[in-house]
Amino acid sequence: MKILLTNDDGIYAPGLLALYECLTSYHEVHVVAPESEMSAVGHCITLSRPLRIQKVSRKGAFFGYAVTGTPADCVKIAVQELFNGTPPDIILSGINLGANVGVNILYSGTVSAATEGAFLGVRSAAISLDATKDPDFRFAAQFSRKVIRFMFSSGLKVNTALNVNIPGIPPEKIKGVCVTRQATARVEERFERRSDPRGNVYYWLAGGKESVEKSKPEVDSVALSENKISITPLYYDLTCEEEYERLKNQPLPSFEELRLDL
Amino acid sequence: MKILLTNDDGIYAPGLLALYECLTSYHEVHVVAPESEMSAVGHCITLSRPLRIQKVSRKGAFFGYAVTGTPADCVKIAVQELFNGTPPDIILSGINLGANVGVNILYSGTVSAATEGAFLGVRSAAISLDATKDPDFRFAAQFSRKVIRFMFSSGLKVNTALNVNIPGIPPEKIKGVCVTRQATARVEERFERRSDPRGNVYYWLAGGKESVEKSKPEVDSVALSENKISITPLYYDLTCEEEYERLKNQPLPSFEELRLDL
Repeated sequence: MKILLTNDDGIYAPGLLALYECLTSYHEVHVVAPESEMSAVGHCITLSRPLRIQKVSRKGAFFGYAVTGTPADCVKIAVQELFNGTPPDIILSGINLGANVGVNILYSGTVSAATEGAFLGVRSAAISLDATKDPDFRFAAQFSRKVIRFMFSSGLKVNTALNVNIPGIPPEKIKGVCVTRQATARVEERFERRSDPRGNVYYWLAGGKESVEKSKPEVDSVALSENKISITPLYYDLTCEEEYERLKNQPLPSFEELRLDL
Repeated sequence: MKILLTNDDGIYAPGLLALYECLTSYHEVHVVAPESEMSAVGHCITLSRPLRIQKVSRKGAFFGYAVTGTPADCVKIAVQELFNGTPPDIILSGINLGANVGVNILYSGTVSAATEGAFLGVRSAAISLDATKDPDFRFAAQFSRKVIRFMFSSGLKVNTALNVNIPGIPPEKIKGVCVTRQATARVEERFERRSDPRGNVYYWLAGGKESVEKSKPEVDSVALSENKISITPLYYDLTCEEEYERLKNQPLPSFEELRLDL
């Protein structure tokens, strides 16, 4: 299978290398990833400046292409330029250092690379490990092979991306695998107000831990807190269906009289 | 009413000024916007560097605060720092120069500011004018007053954002207002491959025009192409409900045997 790997921690991140090393014996693996760390870039694309591509070696051998852009840029340019119009069979984004669950996925470069793949009609998955330090990516990398198989065995639609989160605990403590929804609970966060050495005020975003949504047991953050692997199918449609159906039947804003005000 | 204005074209953009000048006679208006242009930043937040805030004057009077961050940063810091914990009644993001419809809204800083407001529980709307040059923002600014009223009269849920797109044509040619869904059709785009003066290759993203989705008449891009104002309710949940329901009943990837491989 022809697989494109990308991430948002940058081409030198250990999570990407772990994925590469695990998959390269079984598949034709191509790496196109950001030159530098791109966390919390969201679904960002680069319009105002050009992109450059550079070959990168790791462990003394050719590893992949570094792009001076975001994860979504990497997916776009890989599918459209490097594969000469023949898209890969699968796109995997990760392994991210840190979970991507709840509303935080809207900020996630890792997830947006998978969503971009889905835009382009390629089965895609984001893989994240819920760890912050001393991560062991080996289990997550091996589980990614299972995710690839699942994408085909389950008949996953090509426009759907999977968001996979793996607990950062010893594998024997993992309690199961479940299909989940994205949590929508509010994230607790705040700004720290500080002064620089010249007395100027600056702010730094702190907190941001997803609060576990007790009311909805089927969401990603709850599964992860219960030491389960969560798999959430994502689709790039932000329409609120409930409000769409309701608002259609409300009196809409008039605009005719505004013509006279000008 | 206490209204927060922001945008992604930056604090000096004419669309923001038009909105400010139209609303300031009727409401308590606060401006917190990016210091510089932030188009296509998506739902990006700044974690790796601190944010600074600076007072900005326009036309010789205090206008608002410029933030060294993205539209989502502006909304976060405004709600949490500048309003001292008392959030505004309404957040408006815009008026953007250019439409924000279809899958492109996932790249849009204008829309993500409204989504961020919805995260924070504030009724929010993104306002975009489908024009590229010589824009006349006056009608769109006046229509924004109607949008504000609609947000209350329709009982819009506080966690829902409205994505409003206004045709960039003379107001008397506008054909109506309609509640729409986000289009999901693929966007046609490509990279231009160029060489710099030193012979190095670079790529520049071109195209990106939303293709009109003929099969679904109720979507934003179709309404706009028919010279109608479109209003799409958005919710920050990317879960694909259809695939969620289906995948739940599929055989899930096993993981137990992976423990032994390590």
